Amino acid sequence: MGSADLQRYRAFADVLADAAGAAIMPYFRARHTVEHKGGQRLDPVTEADRAAEQAMRALIEREFPDHGIVGEEFGAKPARGGYCWALDPIDGTRAFIAGLPLWGVLIALAYEGRPILGVLDQPYLGERFAGSREGATLTARGAPRPLRTSGCGRLGDATLSTTDPTLFDGVEAAAFGRVRDGARLTRYGYDCYAYAMLAMGGVDIVIESGLRAWDIQALIPIIEGAGGSVTSWSGGDAADGGQVLAAANAQLRDAAIDLLADAAR
Amino acid sequence: MGSADLQRYRAFADVLADAAGAAIMPYFRARHTVEHKGGQRLDPVTEADRAAEQAMRALIEREFPDHGIVGEEFGAKPARGGYCWALDPIDGTRAFIAGLPLWGVLIALAYEGRPILGVLDQPYLGERFAGSREGATLTARGAPRPLRTSGCGRLGDATLSTTDPTLFDGVEAAAFGRVRDGARLTRYGYDCYAYAMLAMGGVDIVIESGLRAWDIQALIPIIEGAGGSVTSWSGGDAADGGQVLAAANAQLRDAAIDLLADAAR
Repeated sequence: MGSADLQRYRAFADVLADAAGAAIMPYFRARHTVEHKGGQRLDPVTEADRAAEQAMRALIEREFPDHGIVGEEFGAKPARGGYCWALDPIDGTRAFIAGLPLWGVLIALAYEGRPILGVLDQPYLGERFAGSREGATLTARGAPRPLRTSGCGRLGDATLSTTDPTLFDGVEAAAFGRVRDGARLTRYGYDCYAYAMLAMGGVDIVIESGLRAWDIQALIPIIEGAGGSVTSWSGGDAADGGQVLAAANAQLRDAAIDLLADAAR
Repeated sequence: MGSADLQRYRAFADVLADAAGAAIMPYFRARHTVEHKGGQRLDPVTEADRAAEQAMRALIEREFPDHGIVGEEFGAKPARGGYCWALDPIDGTRAFIAGLPLWGVLIALAYEGRPILGVLDQPYLGERFAGSREGATLTARGAPRPLRTSGCGRLGDATLSTTDPTLFDGVEAAAFGRVRDGARLTRYGYDCYAYAMLAMGGVDIVIESGLRAWDIQALIPIIEGAGGSVTSWSGGDAADGGQVLAAANAQLRDAAIDLLADAAR
């Protein structure tokens, strides 16, 4: 894909993010209905989630009818050709419901299974993180500024993050515990925003499990564009989700993979 | 104290918060020096922390020379008379260092040991939470709006929060685990901002341990002014910190106290 095409898709992703934000913001910090999807864990789905995904899907279907779409709320639309969008209108619905401004709109465009463009938009903060092979930027209250992961090369100096340590199963929890014990400090609770902070250099490692494709695809080009790495726990492709390891650089990635190895699937 | 005095102190707390924010913001998301205070746990202290506390202390000493001051960075100044300010220039220094906008400037005024006025300011978000016996408000991008805790009366419907579940000791961890197991969902990692969300109705219970006076005094009038409760784990006074339980209402408070009782000190 040429640079002009990439720019065109990037501009279109901005349109999608604007539409999603407009659909979501009236519901943020309003007292609204929470549905339960069923299953053991609570998985709140808000009206906002659905309205935003519908708005983005309608725009994609009008502008790029051959593109595939996968999204959290409305399943998969197959692609004719190699392009597929992955949409998570509100990543971090629990944070959203609690009133915390750390949820994000995740928008990814993949070509033949590989994410080439990613946007994380936080409309309450007015922050938009975007990445591609051309680099990664944060646009917040003004001009875009480049994102760059930290140069932290030692696990003992690293800040680790995960959303909820109780989401790991037994073997995973032990493996995560080894990384936590080796890290300088650990922060919990930030969903997609932890990956944005990793791209910005404030967090050095993010480790999660049980992610879906739409939870991670948007974040891969942002982190890679900022100089970091996103892989599975064994160092493989993370674009389908599952066990995900994001690291500021190759040294930290390799140090974490060593400690996660026996829980890697 | 009359209402006019309370208004005067409230206006002065706004001046303090403005001064603290001006001192801190140049350091937020800048790459700056981190010091270690020593001891086992990492306790980062930034230049921003010190600059903000110094700015607030200078203002208090000029305007109210008889008032006492306790603060995280520069110790205690004894009061002549009943008034004492409790200052935490950056509550949530670890979040601050990671680039997360969930730290806050905490400013409390206590009279004879009882917090009568509290402000939590988040200058990056442009949010100021304030409370007193006259009520609690959030000022964000416009006029103040009243804060009101949730009406959630059942633990099974409640959202629980704590900053870091690994900060509890063994008996405390078991007690916290009982509340977590009974709650609808649990969120981690928000420092003072969890209490703000409780005042706003998004979070229903916050449980922490090992707090200092300046970590909690500002939050007591905000939560009480919004209709909630802040006590020790046994239901006593929480103004000196230690084991703290904040709840949206008396039913949730009592349900949590039952489960925390055997770990209460």
